[in-house]
Amino acid sequence: MELQSNASNFLAAGFRYEESPIVIVGCPLDITSTFRPGTRFAPQAIREASWGLETYSPLLDRDLEDLRICDVGDLNLPQGNLAGALEMVQGYVAALTGDGKFPILIGGEHLISLPAVNELVKHHPDLLVIQLDAHADLRQEYLGESLSHATVMRRIADVLGNGGICQLGVRSSTREEMISAKEMGSLYETGEVLRLAASRPVYLTVDLDVLDPGVAPGVSTPEPGGLTFEQAISLISSLSSLRVVGFDLVELSPLYDPTQQSAIAAAKLLRELILLFCWDIDRK
Amino acid sequence: MELQSNASNFLAAGFRYEESPIVIVGCPLDITSTFRPGTRFAPQAIREASWGLETYSPLLDRDLEDLRICDVGDLNLPQGNLAGALEMVQGYVAALTGDGKFPILIGGEHLISLPAVNELVKHHPDLLVIQLDAHADLRQEYLGESLSHATVMRRIADVLGNGGICQLGVRSSTREEMISAKEMGSLYETGEVLRLAASRPVYLTVDLDVLDPGVAPGVSTPEPGGLTFEQAISLISSLSSLRVVGFDLVELSPLYDPTQQSAIAAAKLLRELILLFCWDIDRK
Amino acid sequence: MELQSNASNFLAAGFRYEESPIVIVGCPLDITSTFRPGTRFAPQAIREASWGLETYSPLLDRDLEDLRICDVGDLNLPQGNLAGALEMVQGYVAALTGDGKFPILIGGEHLISLPAVNELVKHHPDLLVIQLDAHADLRQEYLGESLSHATVMRRIADVLGNGGICQLGVRSSTREEMISAKEMGSLYETGEVLRLAASRPVYLTVDLDVLDPGVAPGVSTPEPGGLTFEQAISLISSLSSLRVVGFDLVELSPLYDPTQQSAIAAAKLLRELILLFCWDIDRK
Amino acid sequence: MELQSNASNFLAAGFRYEESPIVIVGCPLDITSTFRPGTRFAPQAIREASWGLETYSPLLDRDLEDLRICDVGDLNLPQGNLAGALEMVQGYVAALTGDGKFPILIGGEHLISLPAVNELVKHHPDLLVIQLDAHADLRQEYLGESLSHATVMRRIADVLGNGGICQLGVRSSTREEMISAKEMGSLYETGEVLRLAASRPVYLTVDLDVLDPGVAPGVSTPEPGGLTFEQAISLISSLSSLRVVGFDLVELSPLYDPTQQSAIAAAKLLRELILLFCWDIDRK
Amino acid sequence: MELQSNASNFLAAGFRYEESPIVIVGCPLDITSTFRPGTRFAPQAIREASWGLETYSPLLDRDLEDLRICDVGDLNLPQGNLAGALEMVQGYVAALTGDGKFPILIGGEHLISLPAVNELVKHHPDLLVIQLDAHADLRQEYLGESLSHATVMRRIADVLGNGGICQLGVRSSTREEMISAKEMGSLYETGEVLRLAASRPVYLTVDLDVLDPGVAPGVSTPEPGGLTFEQAISLISSLSSLRVVGFDLVELSPLYDPTQQSAIAAAKLLRELILLFCWDIDRK
Amino acid sequence: MELQSNASNFLAAGFRYEESPIVIVGCPLDITSTFRPGTRFAPQAIREASWGLETYSPLLDRDLEDLRICDVGDLNLPQGNLAGALEMVQGYVAALTGDGKFPILIGGEHLISLPAVNELVKHHPDLLVIQLDAHADLRQEYLGESLSHATVMRRIADVLGNGGICQLGVRSSTREEMISAKEMGSLYETGEVLRLAASRPVYLTVDLDVLDPGVAPGVSTPEPGGLTFEQAISLISSLSSLRVVGFDLVELSPLYDPTQQSAIAAAKLLRELILLFCWDIDRK
Repeated sequence: MELQSNASNFLAAGFRYEESPIVIVGCPLDITSTFRPGTRFAPQAIREASWGLETYSPLLDRDLEDLRICDVGDLNLPQGNLAGALEMVQGYVAALTGDGKFPILIGGEHLISLPAVNELVKHHPDLLVIQLDAHADLRQEYLGESLSHATVMRRIADVLGNGGICQLGVRSSTREEMISAKEMGSLYETGEVLRLAASRPVYLTVDLDVLDPGVAPGVSTPEPGGLTFEQAISLISSLSSLRVVGFDLVELSPLYDPTQQSAIAAAKLLRELILLFCWDIDRK
Repeated sequence: MELQSNASNFLAAGFRYEESPIVIVGCPLDITSTFRPGTRFAPQAIREASWGLETYSPLLDRDLEDLRICDVGDLNLPQGNLAGALEMVQGYVAALTGDGKFPILIGGEHLISLPAVNELVKHHPDLLVIQLDAHADLRQEYLGESLSHATVMRRIADVLGNGGICQLGVRSSTREEMISAKEMGSLYETGEVLRLAASRPVYLTVDLDVLDPGVAPGVSTPEPGGLTFEQAISLISSLSSLRVVGFDLVELSPLYDPTQQSAIAAAKLLRELILLFCWDIDRK
Repeated sequence: MELQSNASNFLAAGFRYEESPIVIVGCPLDITSTFRPGTRFAPQAIREASWGLETYSPLLDRDLEDLRICDVGDLNLPQGNLAGALEMVQGYVAALTGDGKFPILIGGEHLISLPAVNELVKHHPDLLVIQLDAHADLRQEYLGESLSHATVMRRIADVLGNGGICQLGVRSSTREEMISAKEMGSLYETGEVLRLAASRPVYLTVDLDVLDPGVAPGVSTPEPGGLTFEQAISLISSLSSLRVVGFDLVELSPLYDPTQQSAIAAAKLLRELILLFCWDIDRK
Repeated sequence: MELQSNASNFLAAGFRYEESPIVIVGCPLDITSTFRPGTRFAPQAIREASWGLETYSPLLDRDLEDLRICDVGDLNLPQGNLAGALEMVQGYVAALTGDGKFPILIGGEHLISLPAVNELVKHHPDLLVIQLDAHADLRQEYLGESLSHATVMRRIADVLGNGGICQLGVRSSTREEMISAKEMGSLYETGEVLRLAASRPVYLTVDLDVLDPGVAPGVSTPEPGGLTFEQAISLISSLSSLRVVGFDLVELSPLYDPTQQSAIAAAKLLRELILLFCWDIDRK
Repeated sequence: MELQSNASNFLAAGFRYEESPIVIVGCPLDITSTFRPGTRFAPQAIREASWGLETYSPLLDRDLEDLRICDVGDLNLPQGNLAGALEMVQGYVAALTGDGKFPILIGGEHLISLPAVNELVKHHPDLLVIQLDAHADLRQEYLGESLSHATVMRRIADVLGNGGICQLGVRSSTREEMISAKEMGSLYETGEVLRLAASRPVYLTVDLDVLDPGVAPGVSTPEPGGLTFEQAISLISSLSSLRVVGFDLVELSPLYDPTQQSAIAAAKLLRELILLFCWDIDRK
Repeated sequence: MELQSNASNFLAAGFRYEESPIVIVGCPLDITSTFRPGTRFAPQAIREASWGLETYSPLLDRDLEDLRICDVGDLNLPQGNLAGALEMVQGYVAALTGDGKFPILIGGEHLISLPAVNELVKHHPDLLVIQLDAHADLRQEYLGESLSHATVMRRIADVLGNGGICQLGVRSSTREEMISAKEMGSLYETGEVLRLAASRPVYLTVDLDVLDPGVAPGVSTPEPGGLTFEQAISLISSLSSLRVVGFDLVELSPLYDPTQQSAIAAAKLLRELILLFCWDIDRK
């Protein structure tokens, strides 16, 4: 008798850890958000939403079913202990890279990119981080704290040094962040990114709010005036030649979207990201 | 004393059956949906939403008030009896065509197109079905069932034979459906459709999910990356020269859209569809 | 590294099938509802809600962690095929009883009780069905159909014959149902039930709408004037001496309750039902 | 072919005006509310909710189907013109009484009781108004206006003079209102009301907020600590011997209750009110 | 100790009245709406939403923190008294202009523009009103009333005479309104507006429904097919050379948008409007 | 001209700090919640809800307007820094007691009671904490952390020693917590509490989930089977003779309650708490 165990993994990601070169892990960090909470529910909402999609992408003519992917579930992050939670994320990324897996992180808030980068840079010293995001996230500190969703790219820039980050889609910042971004030359056009990143390993971090609130209202900090879904897919596809060594998708807050369209958009983005950047890692 | 009997019919469709060459009927079939239910509430939601619009279309410079339309209400479909429900829809379409009425069906789920086509093809043997939809709906069967919202266009193709269906706007399918669509040549560009359909009677089926979830999140199966409202109207307007003998609008699920924008978009689409394709049938 | 696989089973029901004398199965049947759909989402919503509760019941001084329970997930019911779906439920209950398991069904709509009873009566010819419900569900047919959430107890009475059903909490019916209930003597007070059921195997079916809509608004057909949560627990506890051979909990429709209190109430009811009626089956 | 014209009238109230001694009219006045708007949607929401109930009341052993009731729809009240709107309500009540009909008004906000009383007192000079309400509504003026949902009972007291109003269930007021209520002796216990009203014609006005917000959260001004549904029915039933010449049910705001339980509670209250107070007016 | 008094003013508008040349006032008029109420909550919702944005606009390279703005809160409009409410708005605008302040009004419904124009035209006899709106709002009367959200531009045209209003973005009207608009030549393209308005003082009224419902579903009367957020900003920016003497932003109804994206879009529009049209009034 | 600055303080709490012996402060801590976030929005939601109530309590015949209360707004707690946030709460309570103010804290999550008690016990060495709560909150640690909403009463017991806490209304705990509560004798009946507390200064902490989810569904962790609003008021009133030196109201999560009834219930509880326990502190 056929049983269904609904939504326990992302679409087509039902393989065992041992047999899967690609691993999805939920990182439900939801501590530093100031405007709207709820990113803790994102990994599960994306899994559930994914089952309303097909495994096949007509655009790419590729199918998730040709890959072996394991969705391991969510990290059991300690409550109210930010340092401990970040450490756990880094530890898990270390375990994945130790096992030769391609890491895919589903946030949770944007801060999860920091421990992922902290770990990956050990293996890829010339790592480049490409960020798709409505916000610059370059503050030195936010409300007195140096670790925050609003400072995460500054912290990553601290780790990677000059030229370590490329920012695409940014449409909101403080004046100080804008000056800072110009000084460090982090704001790029797509073409430039391709030249810059051609020879470097890339970690891609996608903040769902790079999309327009019209198509993804359920995020921590909606910023009007963003990309349509097609523009986002087109932008991501333009990066397909890069050597991506890991990526994340962060900042979905499904609590704020009873229509579920935000989670569905996130799930479809994730499908396309996997089909674009993991296609050559593994084919069944 | 003026009384208002709110929302008991679609905007301006308050004529008696006998005097109306154009008839709207609600077909609240809501049985085979797998992802999100609620299409049963669509006809009533579209009626209520229509009263926030004008009867006049500035784009077309036409006014619903120049037409005589009867909205007969909803078919009282038997619960849990799919075969019986489809039979009742077909029976009602037969009655309408018998009375010389132009049939407009409001779903309910997409499967209602099948009995409509089954009936209309008796009167129009060279009937062409033009489908606006995010999904191909060409599966041979779905979850073991041959009758489903996901198989409806395959069943219609079975009835009409090769060249019987034209699909516009499809952006999601399985790999098998895509192969199948290519084999039967059902995927068209607008220009081609006009040539193909020039001499044939047309049944138009509009799945609301052809719109982007940003403008119509309240559908059974939202698929990111669709048409804006203007693009949809433009596409439909481009078909205005065709001889349409009936149409439907399906798959709205108002339960999932507390903003009501999906029902309002459906109501406005319906207004424009009527003004485009029923304008020459009847003018008061 | 500790991973969390959220909400993939009911609280503390993470044992393997082979080691568990008690089995929970979701039966997401959602076809015949006329008023409000959505019971298909109930099993998953109850699982997720259960993790906000403790495994321990202060009232009963018993703990789920002392039992070995397997939550096998949901049956993959065929869409739009009522007969096939009921057959699948019956088949699964047959498999469970064949393996000596205690069956716990989570609906889905109330009709799932029928195949469960159809199967259990083979093993327990003097089976008594005790129903907690706001509605009599005794119609001969509903909207022309003999199989419906509104006819289920009539169909069960057809199977079990006179004296086969006891109805508690009923506060809504047609006049005909009331006459019928009086003729067959199905309406009972708790004390009478205890006498009647003392020597018989019992199947208990709990329609969540026996609770007041104030505490469980998310049901298919809310009926004002029902039990408080405490009254419901007290009523169920009064049956604790009976020999229950299976039970179900049906008619939650989480779509209609953004507060989640209905799913949480269902989950707590389920915990207490298990601790009351499965306690002597198995203790670790 | 059976067609369904959903929700166009209250349950079982589908008779023509001419043949019905009992008439329901919606009065969607929604102008003076200060806290939460939306009572304009109440009549339609109550109609739709009523179809989830039975026509038969097990408690009263009476059935709506034994009565001839006409639901005429909603008055088309002028926007933003309070005086004009009240005049229209009074005009319609005058028409009803002129035709010998028993008037049942569905609000809209509480202020609609004022024109109803203004008209009925012409025919029943010793009219007594019994109010079930969480709030005293006895302010002399509210935010500078003498006509408001918060002053309505004061205005009615102005019309009827001393001893003209009986208030039941009041649990919120200003200190001034409380003093005032004591001075005019308007606060009663049920038993006293029965004695007082024994020989007088009664107009009953039921503000839905007399119920606890737990069972009717969707009202303009929820006030914690109210009646359970059963307590409300019991209170109303205790008045069954009175000679009621009209009644209203006001202040539902369905916008604030996505669970729909408030509208369902209102619909069931209305069913019981009709079966209690219109039973002897007409039996088919 | 730092305290936060959340949302008591619009972002960065925390200056005292005396020191601020720019004043924001909420005008929560919510009386004549026929379709969906709730504009009374708009000013507060826009204030709260504004705190999720930055004070700095990367597009304009300007920062609200360089201006001195006072948000005085909401006018305490009399309930149910339309004439009194309009008078109060006009009185407050008179006070502002008397004190030499630049007035910014947040609606409330569109009718608030009328008293603002009534007052400003006293000081600027050649005042031109530029309207961004989905609807023409040119009816002579609406539901029998001459003062309504649907007649406001007709009333303003009555005040200003021929050539007094320019309408941009209109996509819905009755046939009569369209004829009327053509007769009075009120429909413009942006370029024409610039020529026309070059030498005249301008009052700008922005109805949020000029945006597409996809990006601002929470308005009184959503009209599919509107501007994206970027198109709206671009349109407004094209007017930057005009001499604007006051503006308003009206018709947000936050009740209908649980995602909050409509209020956030309104807040960002307001930020850009201030930075565009008040930049030269005052710089700290 | 009368302006309204909506919801910037709790009902009638508009006095300046200097003139007020009673001070309300919002403590929007929202870090350790595991089930549902959103308590950060509670203080503002309670303020807004309070304006739908009267200042006068008919039950107590007392009026808030007779007291001088200052609502200072919310503490600006550092994001993601639990230790820093708790320190800031304690610092503010220290400032209040230093100024001779009666402290009223609105959570935020339950953990805010700990710093309040830490400070108050300095001034009242024999402080007794009375807790109204559905949950025991007596865990030694929760998910590896010693500071959590689920451990707060254990931490307070650590501070106050044996006999320091009285727990009322507890209906959920682990088996270990229950054993622990029995060992330390913290579970009381109301009568016992009165005897125990007669001669001691009392800090009262009210977790809103002591109410039944039917009347307060919007809390972090709803637990079915709680108090009605009347039972809660009655329980609190029974403590009126105690010498209360401060209190808090915690765990409202307004995000989960679109009906707003939870925030309204919290606001009314707060009004009654103030009228009961601050009445003799200050009378104007």
